[in-house]
Amino acid sequence: MNDQSRGFIDRTLRGFRRAWRLGGRDRVPEPGLPDGDAQRLRDKIDACLEARGGDVSARARAAELGEAYLALNADGRRRFLAILAREYGVDKNAVDAAIAERAAATRPVSRRIANAKLSRALVSPRIRLLSQFNGLDQGVKFLVDLRAELLRSAQTRPYLRPLDSELRQLLESWFDVGFLNLERITWETPASLLEKLIAYEAVHRIRSWDDLKNRLEADRRCYAFFHPNMPGEPLIFVEVALVTGISDNVQQLLDESAPAEDPDKADSAIFYSISNCQRGLAGISFGNFLIKQVADHIARRLPNIRNFVTLSPVPGFRRWLEARLASPDAGILTAAEARTLEAQAGAQSGDGGLKTLLADPDCMTNEKTASLLQPVLMRLCATYLTTARQDSRAEDRVAHFHLSNGARIERINWLADTSRRGIEQSFGMMVNYSYRLDQVERNHEAYTGDGTVIAASAVRKLLKT
Amino acid sequence: MNDQSRGFIDRTLRGFRRAWRLGGRDRVPEPGLPDGDAQRLRDKIDACLEARGGDVSARARAAELGEAYLALNADGRRRFLAILAREYGVDKNAVDAAIAERAAATRPVSRRIANAKLSRALVSPRIRLLSQFNGLDQGVKFLVDLRAELLRSAQTRPYLRPLDSELRQLLESWFDVGFLNLERITWETPASLLEKLIAYEAVHRIRSWDDLKNRLEADRRCYAFFHPNMPGEPLIFVEVALVTGISDNVQQLLDESAPAEDPDKADSAIFYSISNCQRGLAGISFGNFLIKQVADHIARRLPNIRNFVTLSPVPGFRRWLEARLASPDAGILTAAEARTLEAQAGAQSGDGGLKTLLADPDCMTNEKTASLLQPVLMRLCATYLTTARQDSRAEDRVAHFHLSNGARIERINWLADTSRRGIEQSFGMMVNYSYRLDQVERNHEAYTGDGTVIAASAVRKLLKT
Amino acid sequence: MNDQSRGFIDRTLRGFRRAWRLGGRDRVPEPGLPDGDAQRLRDKIDACLEARGGDVSARARAAELGEAYLALNADGRRRFLAILAREYGVDKNAVDAAIAERAAATRPVSRRIANAKLSRALVSPRIRLLSQFNGLDQGVKFLVDLRAELLRSAQTRPYLRPLDSELRQLLESWFDVGFLNLERITWETPASLLEKLIAYEAVHRIRSWDDLKNRLEADRRCYAFFHPNMPGEPLIFVEVALVTGISDNVQQLLDESAPAEDPDKADSAIFYSISNCQRGLAGISFGNFLIKQVADHIARRLPNIRNFVTLSPVPGFRRWLEARLASPDAGILTAAEARTLEAQAGAQSGDGGLKTLLADPDCMTNEKTASLLQPVLMRLCATYLTTARQDSRAEDRVAHFHLSNGARIERINWLADTSRRGIEQSFGMMVNYSYRLDQVERNHEAYTGDGTVIAASAVRKLLKT
Amino acid sequence: MNDQSRGFIDRTLRGFRRAWRLGGRDRVPEPGLPDGDAQRLRDKIDACLEARGGDVSARARAAELGEAYLALNADGRRRFLAILAREYGVDKNAVDAAIAERAAATRPVSRRIANAKLSRALVSPRIRLLSQFNGLDQGVKFLVDLRAELLRSAQTRPYLRPLDSELRQLLESWFDVGFLNLERITWETPASLLEKLIAYEAVHRIRSWDDLKNRLEADRRCYAFFHPNMPGEPLIFVEVALVTGISDNVQQLLDESAPAEDPDKADSAIFYSISNCQRGLAGISFGNFLIKQVADHIARRLPNIRNFVTLSPVPGFRRWLEARLASPDAGILTAAEARTLEAQAGAQSGDGGLKTLLADPDCMTNEKTASLLQPVLMRLCATYLTTARQDSRAEDRVAHFHLSNGARIERINWLADTSRRGIEQSFGMMVNYSYRLDQVERNHEAYTGDGTVIAASAVRKLLKT
Repeated sequence: MNDQSRGFIDRTLRGFRRAWRLGGRDRVPEPGLPDGDAQRLRDKIDACLEARGGDVSARARAAELGEAYLALNADGRRRFLAILAREYGVDKNAVDAAIAERAAATRPVSRRIANAKLSRALVSPRIRLLSQFNGLDQGVKFLVDLRAELLRSAQTRPYLRPLDSELRQLLESWFDVGFLNLERITWETPASLLEKLIAYEAVHRIRSWDDLKNRLEADRRCYAFFHPNMPGEPLIFVEVALVTGISDNVQQLLDESAPAEDPDKADSAIFYSISNCQRGLAGISFGNFLIKQVADHIARRLPNIRNFVTLSPVPGFRRWLEARLASPDAGILTAAEARTLEAQAGAQSGDGGLKTLLADPDCMTNEKTASLLQPVLMRLCATYLTTARQDSRAEDRVAHFHLSNGARIERINWLADTSRRGIEQSFGMMVNYSYRLDQVERNHEAYTGDGTVIAASAVRKLLKT
Repeated sequence: MNDQSRGFIDRTLRGFRRAWRLGGRDRVPEPGLPDGDAQRLRDKIDACLEARGGDVSARARAAELGEAYLALNADGRRRFLAILAREYGVDKNAVDAAIAERAAATRPVSRRIANAKLSRALVSPRIRLLSQFNGLDQGVKFLVDLRAELLRSAQTRPYLRPLDSELRQLLESWFDVGFLNLERITWETPASLLEKLIAYEAVHRIRSWDDLKNRLEADRRCYAFFHPNMPGEPLIFVEVALVTGISDNVQQLLDESAPAEDPDKADSAIFYSISNCQRGLAGISFGNFLIKQVADHIARRLPNIRNFVTLSPVPGFRRWLEARLASPDAGILTAAEARTLEAQAGAQSGDGGLKTLLADPDCMTNEKTASLLQPVLMRLCATYLTTARQDSRAEDRVAHFHLSNGARIERINWLADTSRRGIEQSFGMMVNYSYRLDQVERNHEAYTGDGTVIAASAVRKLLKT
Repeated sequence: MNDQSRGFIDRTLRGFRRAWRLGGRDRVPEPGLPDGDAQRLRDKIDACLEARGGDVSARARAAELGEAYLALNADGRRRFLAILAREYGVDKNAVDAAIAERAAATRPVSRRIANAKLSRALVSPRIRLLSQFNGLDQGVKFLVDLRAELLRSAQTRPYLRPLDSELRQLLESWFDVGFLNLERITWETPASLLEKLIAYEAVHRIRSWDDLKNRLEADRRCYAFFHPNMPGEPLIFVEVALVTGISDNVQQLLDESAPAEDPDKADSAIFYSISNCQRGLAGISFGNFLIKQVADHIARRLPNIRNFVTLSPVPGFRRWLEARLASPDAGILTAAEARTLEAQAGAQSGDGGLKTLLADPDCMTNEKTASLLQPVLMRLCATYLTTARQDSRAEDRVAHFHLSNGARIERINWLADTSRRGIEQSFGMMVNYSYRLDQVERNHEAYTGDGTVIAASAVRKLLKT
Repeated sequence: MNDQSRGFIDRTLRGFRRAWRLGGRDRVPEPGLPDGDAQRLRDKIDACLEARGGDVSARARAAELGEAYLALNADGRRRFLAILAREYGVDKNAVDAAIAERAAATRPVSRRIANAKLSRALVSPRIRLLSQFNGLDQGVKFLVDLRAELLRSAQTRPYLRPLDSELRQLLESWFDVGFLNLERITWETPASLLEKLIAYEAVHRIRSWDDLKNRLEADRRCYAFFHPNMPGEPLIFVEVALVTGISDNVQQLLDESAPAEDPDKADSAIFYSISNCQRGLAGISFGNFLIKQVADHIARRLPNIRNFVTLSPVPGFRRWLEARLASPDAGILTAAEARTLEAQAGAQSGDGGLKTLLADPDCMTNEKTASLLQPVLMRLCATYLTTARQDSRAEDRVAHFHLSNGARIERINWLADTSRRGIEQSFGMMVNYSYRLDQVERNHEAYTGDGTVIAASAVRKLLKT
């Protein structure tokens, strides 16, 4: 290494890092990858594919390619992705040849060799290419963001989907939970990370730094998964409140003026928000593992905590109910319910007055109406959660998530989320799903086996009214 | 999670961790896995394979299986490995079916789906099983050590080799250099790590903690690669001396009484020892990358360093030479050389006296003899390094390593390693290989392309004498 | 240590810590230390004073006393301080006795012993008492906060001042700059610390987390001093901008929408804000040292930075000027200035129209007026800075601070701080003070010696107009 | 700060740091401070004393002075210390003047001011000078080492003692336990620190790194105190074994081949070694606090540990006994003891045969003799520990240390330290001192009050035989 070459690795990689950091922000608008440039890009791709895997120069070539990608505008990037999608897929001929070779292999040894060859032939050049990015500083985050852009483009461009599917699989192997680190997040955490929580929170929006601070008080816990190659970038995080008794109202939990409880006296850990952070990791699931690891983590530190329970939205209930009410012979009310509601609604409709009452935007704030609606809507919600199916899964996606993790439906809470969104999704109802580690496996198997939904007796009782 | 289940994850995993920590050390001798136990082991394996990937209970099952393995004695472990090797390989029928399905796929979409299915069918159940260990604390190290045992057993048991080959591939993907961290090791490093350097040093034995401390002085650098899931366990490490002028003697470098130089005044970084630490990672190469990253690291911090050069042994030279001398018509000496040596040897053998002189165990300490031998042995060593081939690679494994990395042969040093081992391997000669980052790629391609060995003019000149 | 005593230290100290953490916030209103309680407090104080210094039980007793103090309301705390101030001062009799003993000492040895005894007698019991708090977790912060309360009370209660003076001296010895750590603060710093910057910033208010983030961008530096026994509590911090050319406008520096410059290309470090954080450390000076250490720190890391300059307010100028204008024969304008201003003011007053013009609240926003005022006000500001004296110090406290540190007046900037406060203090003018480390000692000596104010030629030139 | 001055602070301080690091090691032999140099040194001292306290340039001047000191050889340093001792003591005239001023002060306010002035006058210039070193990197360690040299020199040079006494007091205030950090030391600790334990261990020599590792096993604890300004330099450390039952033999504890116990099952923490590390801190006590903090630390983490007990040497017993035996009418044996021993000794001396038996170097290894000696020596040891006094303190320095800390004598152990040193000091006996935190204060007061030595009944019983 003489003076001319000094810091060569560093120089190349720094170019990539800088380009990556700038992102789209300060980019001079570039033409959308005209044909001449496209050819140069192909040359760069080919150079990468020829490099010796794991070598320093391979890394430098990948950095150059990444830098070129980052310099492109949205159009250019789509063209780049299209090139990958159309020209660097699995080589059909190579696969055919490998299959033929395997057919000819008769002895176990030669069959084994043929199998290995076939395995390699089934890996597309584009995946070999993209794999090389793991060696770059920020290279993994680069791929995750590239997939986020790819996902967006693929919505209207089906030819991008095979590429997406392969990239998802690659990321899935890299982001195996075994490689992730669970870290607790507190008010002592760097601000650069905390501002990401504010940005990524997807369930109950964090309105300000004060709101965030309240969620990190002494009686709260916040945990996130991180990947060693993406330091400072949470993959998913969960917010937990340590309280006495199982919470039935999320606004109380989010109330900044409420004093912090003593976590050594609480008996319940309420998982009230769980958010995925990386759009580019869509379809790769961490939530199940996160909840259980956090429960285990809390259980070991705070032996007083006995209940591990969520406070979850029911995003699909209202849509489901309205669909039922729209259909001619809904027949979803009992005779008694219909009588009561019709008396209030002053209507004689086939739906027993429910449709009429719900059509009133103030139905939930009118105390009289609300109190009449409560038993009916809670029963229907229990029905929805335990019986509504889509492709043999619970129709409600939140319910499906927790049930397939082995949780059970513990309680349905009336007026639990009175925000506009809460009313719009589920007339303000929220659900507690309970995780009891000695039962989750049995529950999980019952649910994934024959679709049995495990619910506490309080919920089952609602169904019988 | 109630009291009964509290800390369940932790309990299971702790069992594995403890078993792992104890290793073979304090183990009560166990029977070598009698048949009943073998069946129970199969059940455990099947339970693992049925578990939902990435789930908590899958992790617990893997932990139990690992604990069972660790409780076995050497015989039992071999039987365990044999079960994996014989019963959990790639399912031939599944592969055949997937190939058939692919043959039937005509449209690109269905072919793509068939490809993916075929890919999955080509992954053996045992690899899916072993993959689950990455989620366990110490699970990766467990697999690495398991492979070390597997390698030992496979030497005499060919049926274990396919399993080894698959495991190597799995570890190769996990230990991709992109996932590794380069860390500098100093006298400030925890003793628990430093004692591993003492244990793992493979080139120039570290005789004591004082010897180690000397190798970590202000004018030395030591770097190692680590994997995020194996903290505190070096994969490979390199020792570097910062000196003025290119070192030609390793005993000088190891001399504990020599004062430390000022690293800001040195001009050369001498890579004088590089050791792999994990037998279970045999066949997975980090050295090339390590050398270049360390060179880059030093170059950026110490702009005064201009030469990045090894001081390397020539492990195969003496064996090669003796083989040549043993063959009837060696003809490896020039007429002039033969005359000189014969005069000293007082012999009239076909080898020009060389064999006779070398047969004398004191030939290197007898100054007269040594001075006569020097030009002859240096020329032959240059010949050996630049021309001796095995399967189109340099016969000397150290030479092959550096040449394939793109280094060039810079200099051959006489009396450079006068330890017994140095004399036994190469009559005390050592070689400087030089890394110039602006040339390594060209050199690498020349060597891997048509086998051209790049050597400095000083070395080439030796050949002409 | 048996079961009864287990964790005794911890228990006592935890009581103090909790009391300390709660501070005044959640305290049940307590009576203001009635007489019976006061006596119990005296007993606690005496118990502390009897304890063996540095012992565990002494620590526990101090913790108890501290807890008692923290449980008091404002009245009670004042009574507590009054008890310390009146009953635990230096023991006059003990001092007299020690002086007598020294008078009797004739030999050097006995004189030395008498000196030591006298020294000890001059330390008041209350200071021995308060010293014991350094061993408590948060004990140092406790004392600092106690002094803040003491300072407030002492404003109207002169009998508290001797206590304050002794406490200041104690804290001064503990907070010697030699014991402080300089730390850089960035957006990676824990939020719990960053929120303190927002609270403590005293020069240019930090309006939001976004404003703060802007002040920690790539082209900014922020440093603070910390004490080892007060982790996470800054003592003083400085904000620096890395720019090209010496800044003449603070609004530009605080503009959140301005892009970050490349710090490797900047040539000047502008110290634009320096804030003390602990009211309880009033009168103990860190600023001088902080500026020079930060300058040194930046100089070593960024060799491109050549100017180390402040952008400072002139808090006393307007007050000074208005006082001059209020006196009958001000005569502070030159004849030429008076003519110009009177023409604009349309006045015939003795002050040459200046008073009239300045009386107009819009004088600075009216462009014509402002441009007439500029040369006059700048000259007067230069006069103020270089000649106005109070007790042989520069009258302007900011000027005095920098001049006594050895800085020189580099430039006076027109319309440099157009905030209301800037206009109110100095008609929007700000000053650059320049730190050249090879000159600071000479400047410092000139200033503290005969009061010479060192100013750059540009400033001196203003005086001559 | 321009180019010429860049890094001025750094440059000066670096000079000091380098000089400090080199210590005496690589120093070119220098003349022992000839007169011209002495004058230059005085000038440097005066420059320091004139500098503004806490200022950057004061720091630089102290660094220069320190560098000058470090460059001197042993003679030169002694002369330097003599200059400080003779010329920079308390200014008698200033003290006299301050006393006169105080005599004239009649009002409380003026008396207070006079007191403060007098306090300052009593601080010698040399202490003001040395105080400035706390601001230097390594400056505190510099002073500690300077005091170590001073202590050595003062043994034969009484005129240095006042200087030592003042320096001790300065260091005492800096090393107040409140400022110290307790840190656990394990095999994970940096080797650079561990090698210091090997060097500093004063009770049971650490023979090798393996020996050290054994002392840091899972069933051991090691803790040290550190000062924030002396990172990596332990002040004192203690070694603890976690065992079942109270240890009665130190060789067992140090046996490297013994397996580690499970710390969660142990019931006793045995403090078997406590060593001061810094000779320059002689006379400043940390041990009392260290033992209690460590006990508290362990108690909180391991609730199973119920006994906190030392295993301590009895360094003065044999010397005391031999002095008694040497005196004519020792009369220290009971009639029964005398009979038994004389029978074995075959002697008719006044000492009842004890002297004769002990004169045999093999008396402790001869089983018969040893068994006869055991009851006698144990009784005498109990007598020694509980009654032998020197200046109203226990004569045995280890006994005094623990008794004054509030420990009680729990047990005397026969054949507890069979090393040569153990035999030489106390015929192999060792003592367990027990720390029960609920009793230490009472014990401490009994001991320091009227000299009562608290001992367990087993020890008291020995006295009655």
